[in-house]
Order: sequence, then structure tokens, then C-alpha cells
Amino acid sequence: MLKLRYKIWLDNSGKAFGEGPCDMLKRIDRLGSLNKAAGELNMSYSKAWKLMNTMEKRLGFKLLKRDVGGDSGGGSYLTEEARVMIHKYTMFVQDSDKALNKLFKYYFEEE
Amino acid sequence: MLKLRYKIWLDNSGKAFGEGPCDMLKRIDRLGSLNKAAGELNMSYSKAWKLMNTMEKRLGFKLLKRDVGGDSGGGSYLTEEARVMIHKYTMFVQDSDKALNKLFKYYFEEE
Repeated sequence: MLKLRYKIWLDNSGKAFGEGPCDMLKRIDRLGSLNKAAGELNMSYSKAWKLMNTMEKRLGFKLLKRDVGGDSGGGSYLTEEARVMIHKYTMFVQDSDKALNKLFKYYFEEE
Repeated sequence: MLKLRYKIWLDNSGKAFGEGPCDMLKRIDRLGSLNKAAGELNMSYSKAWKLMNTMEKRLGFKLLKRDVGGDSGGGSYLTEEARVMIHKYTMFVQDSDKALNKLFKYYFEEE
């Protein structure tokens, strides 16, 4: 049976935001650590850091703030802009999924 | 500036239809030849034939009919089902593009 498949992302001279970065940010928020979030995805810390850094440059605002030192050795936390971005992107993808599935149904499942 | 990017395709245990096959079919229709269509895309005849064959299997109907022999050495022509598919897919992608851009505007260009 024919199924709909799609990928949606945001671009600014390269990938600026999408499923991957959104998932990574949610993990950092839950774990309070970029290093632990990277670990869950079997990604190196340097690769995860580079990814976040590239997204920040392309989006034009900071996604993470770093809490240095203390007993825990510091951690990574989301900026307010990152929270807004996650929310907007999640809503955008949800609405897009509905719209695309409705159109797919209309054109390919009418029989 | 943030831009919307997306890819949409149809799947049936693998890619069944998308921009590439749609473009290929339109070229075959214009040129009356799978070989010439492949040539325009710098694709080998065998690769183009394999692509069409795979799409036909996944879609469950024939896309091409072959006119063998004659002075011209025969040619490839679209089936009625292929024409309907091109039409449906083109309309589907046009409507999807409108819907996604509208949502993108709503969520990311409201400021």
C-alpha cells in the first residue's frame, strides 16, 4: 500500500533546524547536560557541540547556556529562545503532518 | 533568513514515486524514448530502466509501454496510469507546497 513520506527542515545557508537538533535539545533539557544527551545518541561530545554551534550560527541566536563549575561540574541548559524554537517547530511539524496526510488521502486514497 | 525546505515522496517498501521519477516520466513523454530521457539526465539506460522497473513494482502498475521495431527502432511511451500518476503527484505537491508555506509563514515569519 502506498504511504506518504516526507522530511521538513529549516535552512539558512545550510540546515538550521530539524528533527535531529530538536530531539537533541529536548534531551539536553531533560538531562541538563550536552555530554549526556550526546551519549544517549551515541554521538561524541565534540560532534554534538559542533552541531549545536552550527545551529546557533544559522538561527542567529543561542540555544544553550553553560553553567560552569560547582560540585556537579556544570551543565548545559536551554535558552528561552531554544524553548520557543522547540515549541514552534513541534507545532509546525504537527500541523504540517495533518495537512500533508489530508492531501495525500485526497489524492491517493480516494478510491 | 530562515527558509522552509522539504522533501515529499511516496513509499511502498521503498521509494515508489517522487520528484525524480516524475521528471523522468515527463522527459520520456516529451522525447518518446527512455534512452534519450536517461541521456538528458546523464543517466545510463540500464539505470533508468531499473528505476522505472522498481517504481512499477512498488506502484503495482505499468508506467511505460514499449513500441518495438519500425524505422525508428521503437520507443517508450507512457501508460494511461503513468499520466494519471504524474497529474495526481503534481497536484499533490503543488497543494502541499502551498499548505507548508502557509504554516511556515504562520510560525516563523509572524514577527
